[in-house]
Amino acid sequence: MIHHSDLLILLDDAEYALRLERLQQALAPVADAMLITDHATLYWLTGRVFAGYAYVPAAAAPLYGLRRCVHLKGPGVAAERKIEDFAVRVAGICPPARRLALETSVASYDAVERYRAAFAAQWEDVSVVAAGPVLRAVRAVKTPRQLQLMRESGRRHEAVYRRIPQLYAPGMTDMELQVEIERTSRLEGCLGQFRIAGDDMELFMGSILTGDNADAPSPYDFAMGGAGMDPSLPVGADGSVIRPGTTVMVDMNGDFTGYMTDMTRTFRLGAIAEEAMRAHEVSRDICRRLAGMGVPGTPARELYDTALAMAREAGLEHCFMGHRQHAGFVGHGLGIEINEAPVIAPRSRDILAEGMCVALEPKFVIPGTGAVGIENTYVVRACGPMECITGAPEEIINLEK
Amino acid sequence: MIHHSDLLILLDDAEYALRLERLQQALAPVADAMLITDHATLYWLTGRVFAGYAYVPAAAAPLYGLRRCVHLKGPGVAAERKIEDFAVRVAGICPPARRLALETSVASYDAVERYRAAFAAQWEDVSVVAAGPVLRAVRAVKTPRQLQLMRESGRRHEAVYRRIPQLYAPGMTDMELQVEIERTSRLEGCLGQFRIAGDDMELFMGSILTGDNADAPSPYDFAMGGAGMDPSLPVGADGSVIRPGTTVMVDMNGDFTGYMTDMTRTFRLGAIAEEAMRAHEVSRDICRRLAGMGVPGTPARELYDTALAMAREAGLEHCFMGHRQHAGFVGHGLGIEINEAPVIAPRSRDILAEGMCVALEPKFVIPGTGAVGIENTYVVRACGPMECITGAPEEIINLEK
Repeated sequence: MIHHSDLLILLDDAEYALRLERLQQALAPVADAMLITDHATLYWLTGRVFAGYAYVPAAAAPLYGLRRCVHLKGPGVAAERKIEDFAVRVAGICPPARRLALETSVASYDAVERYRAAFAAQWEDVSVVAAGPVLRAVRAVKTPRQLQLMRESGRRHEAVYRRIPQLYAPGMTDMELQVEIERTSRLEGCLGQFRIAGDDMELFMGSILTGDNADAPSPYDFAMGGAGMDPSLPVGADGSVIRPGTTVMVDMNGDFTGYMTDMTRTFRLGAIAEEAMRAHEVSRDICRRLAGMGVPGTPARELYDTALAMAREAGLEHCFMGHRQHAGFVGHGLGIEINEAPVIAPRSRDILAEGMCVALEPKFVIPGTGAVGIENTYVVRACGPMECITGAPEEIINLEK
Repeated sequence: MIHHSDLLILLDDAEYALRLERLQQALAPVADAMLITDHATLYWLTGRVFAGYAYVPAAAAPLYGLRRCVHLKGPGVAAERKIEDFAVRVAGICPPARRLALETSVASYDAVERYRAAFAAQWEDVSVVAAGPVLRAVRAVKTPRQLQLMRESGRRHEAVYRRIPQLYAPGMTDMELQVEIERTSRLEGCLGQFRIAGDDMELFMGSILTGDNADAPSPYDFAMGGAGMDPSLPVGADGSVIRPGTTVMVDMNGDFTGYMTDMTRTFRLGAIAEEAMRAHEVSRDICRRLAGMGVPGTPARELYDTALAMAREAGLEHCFMGHRQHAGFVGHGLGIEINEAPVIAPRSRDILAEGMCVALEPKFVIPGTGAVGIENTYVVRACGPMECITGAPEEIINLEK
């Protein structure tokens, strides 16, 4: 008897067929087959993270090799601890893949070399194709099932954010408030895992910035910085007490389902500078405008250009997307990972398509006050505007009791 | 005026010189220079994570290129967004490195290719050497300053574990207890970040296993498994209610300083099976024995062999390091990352040396009861037993109130 938990493929048949078809359609023009080992992409393809290999021919059924959890069952599934053994089975079943797509942008150099050698030992003449562009394009467009999971994350993310004013207590530091939000979030079912493609960014559960810590440059390519609690993780909250006249920007983990939403809200303690209040409204205006523009076929860079023009028109360009250090984008695709396609940046070549998910985060850093602005996650629909799936109140809420 | 926070190198001069000297000594026989971009190694070398490049010649001062946070100052430091620009500066100052060590085991294939090409454009004839073995050996042996940070993490880790009995409330699920431990830990200063070298393992803040969930195989190469809350992160707590007659194994994040300790303790709800109580004592015995054996010069595999022999002698081999799925090691080095050298495994070639830090985790899974055993972090000393730096009480504590 096979239990549900013993199936390698956790997606239902139609969903699995749909994802596979999209992948194979994008793959066929550039390669004969793709080898997948990255957890995020294995999860995308099968509905579960597993340790092993997926070999996806452009025009035949996939084969799977398991390094661990060898009890898992399914068509084409076998236990093969080593890629060399998996390659032998693949070569016994499939015709040679002269052009083999490997995940060169995320797998290590040593891993890619070993994978290539394992298949070259079977077929001689194997040339490596970068799998990244195909996967980036295919994963950017979500299926209806994936959109359900995104919306579910959005609902629970929102439920957590609505409780933030009650979590604040006078005298708290940014980190103390963050810890209470983390707890509320975890009890609401947040998985905690913050998947980021590549090794350039690190973050634990999200970021809370108060006052001038919002202006501390960070080594990571996030929209905002923050000094962090330690030079081993220099980003986000730095232990500052939340002071009257400053803002608290909350940008916490929205991974409740394996598919994550991204949402930022700004709070304040008492009255804050007029410019900060105004910049926050500009951020909301930008989001509204961009959401209206975000129909299929729109170049992502046009959204960026519009956002920048609106910030400039408001006389706020100097503090748009940072003050001491500026981020070079105003939004990003997301789903299983926080940095998927499309990227909303000046030189982006991405074009919006139905089913894409995009986080828009036009933010401002006001020296002496802190960061202001909002971030929402949107779904691109067939006919505009984009659907906002992170619905917590957008105005700056006063934490003062 | 330069603030402390504006210095790229946060280590004091003697500490920086010591680490650099160790690296260069190990590097000289195999390569002319090493390029470092991995966050964990940059942090090891400078005391801070930054976005950029370190070029370390085997016999001259390092050069640093900054991709972000370009305000950072120091000898040999400049802003260079692209590796190609950094390579031009390096080539203008340093003689050609015919053998260039690159982090082929952790950097992506595309990144390594780009780095190689950038230096080959300056010097033609550049051959790539794997930096991994050199870094693994050098980072395994901690300096006195690093040991201080390890001990500090151990103290705070212990303080959190001592509070676990008070955090438990009747009827709790494993995840509800985990969330309270996470909160306590974060308020105690835990950074949360769980650095793991490579892409094969993922974990959020640690693992709590109760009852038969300890026997659920996981795709990750940890000592224990657990089904997890979601197939996107299939490890650890699965939402099971903690039931009378079962154990709760707690193995939570010990990163309080950038250097992390690893510690496991077992709790129970009421009386548990005699075999489980006995297996727990065998685990403690194994730790004591191995700690006594762990003098410089001891092959790591001898520790593994001894642990396995003791488990076998106790008639517990079938449930040692797992039951449905067995882990192939009994301990591991750790520091900035949770999986550093040495590895305590049957085919390990690592030899213990003074200053190494090792986590020993001889664990057993007793079907119907759960996981038992302990884990401690130890420092290898010049003479005599290893120093235990995770001192929470080792016996199974009853959570029943």
